[in-house]
Amino acid sequence: MARELAIALISGGMDSCVCAAIAAEECELAALHVAYGQRTEQREREAFIAIADHYGIPAHRRLLCSIAHLAAIGGSSLTDARIPVTQCGLDESAVPTSYVPFRNAHFLSIAVSWAEVIGATRIYIGAVQDDSSGYPDCRAEYYEAFNRLAEVGTKPETHITIVTPVIHLRKDAIVRRGIELGAPFHLTWSCYQRSDRACGLCDSCRLRLAAFARAGVEDPIPYEARPEVGS
Amino acid sequence: MARELAIALISGGMDSCVCAAIAAEECELAALHVAYGQRTEQREREAFIAIADHYGIPAHRRLLCSIAHLAAIGGSSLTDARIPVTQCGLDESAVPTSYVPFRNAHFLSIAVSWAEVIGATRIYIGAVQDDSSGYPDCRAEYYEAFNRLAEVGTKPETHITIVTPVIHLRKDAIVRRGIELGAPFHLTWSCYQRSDRACGLCDSCRLRLAAFARAGVEDPIPYEARPEVGS
Repeated sequence: MARELAIALISGGMDSCVCAAIAAEECELAALHVAYGQRTEQREREAFIAIADHYGIPAHRRLLCSIAHLAAIGGSSLTDARIPVTQCGLDESAVPTSYVPFRNAHFLSIAVSWAEVIGATRIYIGAVQDDSSGYPDCRAEYYEAFNRLAEVGTKPETHITIVTPVIHLRKDAIVRRGIELGAPFHLTWSCYQRSDRACGLCDSCRLRLAAFARAGVEDPIPYEARPEVGS
Repeated sequence: MARELAIALISGGMDSCVCAAIAAEECELAALHVAYGQRTEQREREAFIAIADHYGIPAHRRLLCSIAHLAAIGGSSLTDARIPVTQCGLDESAVPTSYVPFRNAHFLSIAVSWAEVIGATRIYIGAVQDDSSGYPDCRAEYYEAFNRLAEVGTKPETHITIVTPVIHLRKDAIVRRGIELGAPFHLTWSCYQRSDRACGLCDSCRLRLAAFARAGVEDPIPYEARPEVGS
């Protein structure tokens, strides 16, 4: 029996890479990457291509989109150079400056449109709720709401499910799951600020470094600085 | 007291024009237009600008987006020249070829992102459920699902409501409501196929002509052909 076709959203970061590794165990893969004017857009696209190559995803099952409107709308340190990227300042009670307003809905809308045309039945996204940085669109209830939207907003015969296999994992558990599955962490990129060497200081770098440290694994990508965990 | 700020999605067609007229009665207006590689993209953009001018919407409250991915994904006669636009063939039991997979989610995602940044609390969209052409993303339950998504997917302090003031109106009632409010029908464009004179034959033209005929009002835009209503 043919395996189901799934679209994996691959940003180029570690969570989406492990999510793609999980999807590859369960389904045939198509891969979607969306650039949106974020600071490290080019570096993340390179990471996407390397990960898609690693999983042998053919050209007709890769979709790279570039959307200009999130940067035009602004409101985030990721897309507006005037808003500084938070450093060493994860505050669990607040939505961080790197929150891009309603960003994941843009990605998922593209994924659902594409899934309906190519006949994919699942969309894998590496959202992380519990051990992440406070984005409202990374919570399980958000994906429940999106699944309802996809069900009522597509053709009656179309049934697409958004799958969030790492949403309740801590970041260190994601690292361990990735190691088990042979996820190519060396090809990923997470830094919000730099594209040559990861800064080690932005929220994304700090979450990543702490996760690898707790998992007892060395992060294989190059860093400009590797602060002590917990500092 | 300052009026609420609302974003009106203005495609350039008659429904969104009347929807904007209703929004203008109730709120301060911002206006959003999204081109997506549809056949009559340029003509619809002209209609948007003319309608935004008519309502005196300032430049900083207008957002024109152009997205390439819906055309790249295809699956619709509106974005793929190889799929013919249905003519004289409204079949109420089927989703028509002009259905663009999950299209309205792309528009609404842009609107919600923008609303969160500019502080708009309402988004007006001229979706029509009952007397329209069978699009799954024009039904009231779809907008209920989107309102839930916008509530859980934005910051805790953000509250945005999608408003669908014409969703249960028949198209002829929309024409009458527009006449009452002085909506500038002469500036609108609905044809799916042509940009100089409306074809009069595509599903969109036929619905529009029938609506004006039932309302007893002459449609002020030029047509290449005006078939008898009911033919």
